[in-house]
Amino acid sequence: MKKIAIFGVGLIGGSFALALKGAGAVQQVVGVGRTAATLERARALGIIDVACTSVQDALAGAELVLIAAPVAQTGAILAAIAPHLQPGTVVTDAGSTKSDVVAAARAALGPKIAQFVPGHPIAGAELSGPDAAMAQLYRGKKVVLTALPENAEADVERVAGAWRHCGALIHRLGAEQHDSVFAAVSHLPHLLAFGLVDDIARKAHADLLFQYAASGFRDFTRIAGSSPEMWRDISIANQAALLRELDEYMAQLARMRGLLAAGDGTGLEAVYANAQQARHAWNKTIEAAERPAIEGGN
Amino acid sequence: MKKIAIFGVGLIGGSFALALKGAGAVQQVVGVGRTAATLERARALGIIDVACTSVQDALAGAELVLIAAPVAQTGAILAAIAPHLQPGTVVTDAGSTKSDVVAAARAALGPKIAQFVPGHPIAGAELSGPDAAMAQLYRGKKVVLTALPENAEADVERVAGAWRHCGALIHRLGAEQHDSVFAAVSHLPHLLAFGLVDDIARKAHADLLFQYAASGFRDFTRIAGSSPEMWRDISIANQAALLRELDEYMAQLARMRGLLAAGDGTGLEAVYANAQQARHAWNKTIEAAERPAIEGGN
Repeated sequence: MKKIAIFGVGLIGGSFALALKGAGAVQQVVGVGRTAATLERARALGIIDVACTSVQDALAGAELVLIAAPVAQTGAILAAIAPHLQPGTVVTDAGSTKSDVVAAARAALGPKIAQFVPGHPIAGAELSGPDAAMAQLYRGKKVVLTALPENAEADVERVAGAWRHCGALIHRLGAEQHDSVFAAVSHLPHLLAFGLVDDIARKAHADLLFQYAASGFRDFTRIAGSSPEMWRDISIANQAALLRELDEYMAQLARMRGLLAAGDGTGLEAVYANAQQARHAWNKTIEAAERPAIEGGN
Repeated sequence: MKKIAIFGVGLIGGSFALALKGAGAVQQVVGVGRTAATLERARALGIIDVACTSVQDALAGAELVLIAAPVAQTGAILAAIAPHLQPGTVVTDAGSTKSDVVAAARAALGPKIAQFVPGHPIAGAELSGPDAAMAQLYRGKKVVLTALPENAEADVERVAGAWRHCGALIHRLGAEQHDSVFAAVSHLPHLLAFGLVDDIARKAHADLLFQYAASGFRDFTRIAGSSPEMWRDISIANQAALLRELDEYMAQLARMRGLLAAGDGTGLEAVYANAQQARHAWNKTIEAAERPAIEGGN
């Protein structure tokens, strides 16, 4: 590609740019962002070639646009893009939720909706900002594209090809299916971990409790160290699916409470054993899938 | 010490023996267990000097006895010990729950209860059995002693001194306080992680869900890979305290569900932010406390 534009040059957008540059897949990367200092830092780090304050200039001649800003800004960015979006440009995003992004895109882009291919790279890191960006971030990781009925297959392939250049594995799901899956395996665990730590922190003897928390607690609550703003936005954006998963989990806890209150060790052990077996099977699959990436392939 | 006896020569008991031997704090370690092959393996590994099938022989002249078998066996082991327990011997244990152990000890030992000092080393590893035992397991880790009113301070000190030789830091709590603390920071998280994985594994589209589970899910559910039998025993042994913590957590989830259903992003963010702040503060404290151990001190 001759030119791409990236809205949000932090960990996600910056790593995408570095990977494409490293693969020789793009000649010019234009960065757009709200903060001049961040854009300048991204330029100094070689993530972008040009820092652009004009959306019109950024989009002119761009073959691909990636929106990698906080998900709550996606609608506003799409609205700013819409009037300047030319037929040769494909827009994608990196948001953790998809149904809300599709709705925002339909509202913002109107008849140009066919040019928007929603995406979600399943990768991240503890740190954020352009200094955290790295070309290897997506190596061996999944990118889920939730293509729209309006999308031309060539446009979907343009987005998929760019992610493949980053070393990512392309998966395709419907937007609702995506949101339901990630509500279960990502959004709910985050809510549960935040909830547990907040619950403990509010107790009168919180200091005593934290003093004896050990490695199991550390692993279980690691995701409670994540950004509250980001997870507020994800929770609200995926409200319906997250409520469904939360309700099913609360019903599961109520069942387990019943077993515990009845002193039914056999019943509890059946739940624990099924979980342990499933966890081990899943972990084996994941480790097998990750081996090529760890060994340097993709 | 001239002689100690260890009931259960796996990870916990074996590491205790290796650490004491490494520190030159004991001349002879006698091992007692249900499986001849395990005892023989422990002897071959240098964990114990003598494998003993007679409780009477094992206890004769022992200054310290550690019960490090699965917690559900503690009562039966104490009952087997009782008739052979001489005045010069102090007995301790390594169980994850304490109120139930104290009750079992009172029932089994009767007037000899003063010779039992309950304990709980806060250390573990993924593996078990004598081959997993290592002298460094307790280095820099906490050991909680829940001394009884009947215990002579010199007997408590004999147990504390042995653990200090292993490099452990001695903490003292009441048995009920201990169980309430660990229900909150260990037993409840285990139940929640088992519950989540079982919940997902039972869904019709479980394979699809597990396919997209990533690093956050892996950390959150790592403790669901633990032994179902061990956690069944702990859950039932600490039933009352675990029920209290579970009820408070279910109330917390009900509150969070209300915020989510109302689309109250600000309310959710307040919970998330309080959790994130507490998690970061806790993690800093833990990292500071662990630094000497990591750097080779104790």
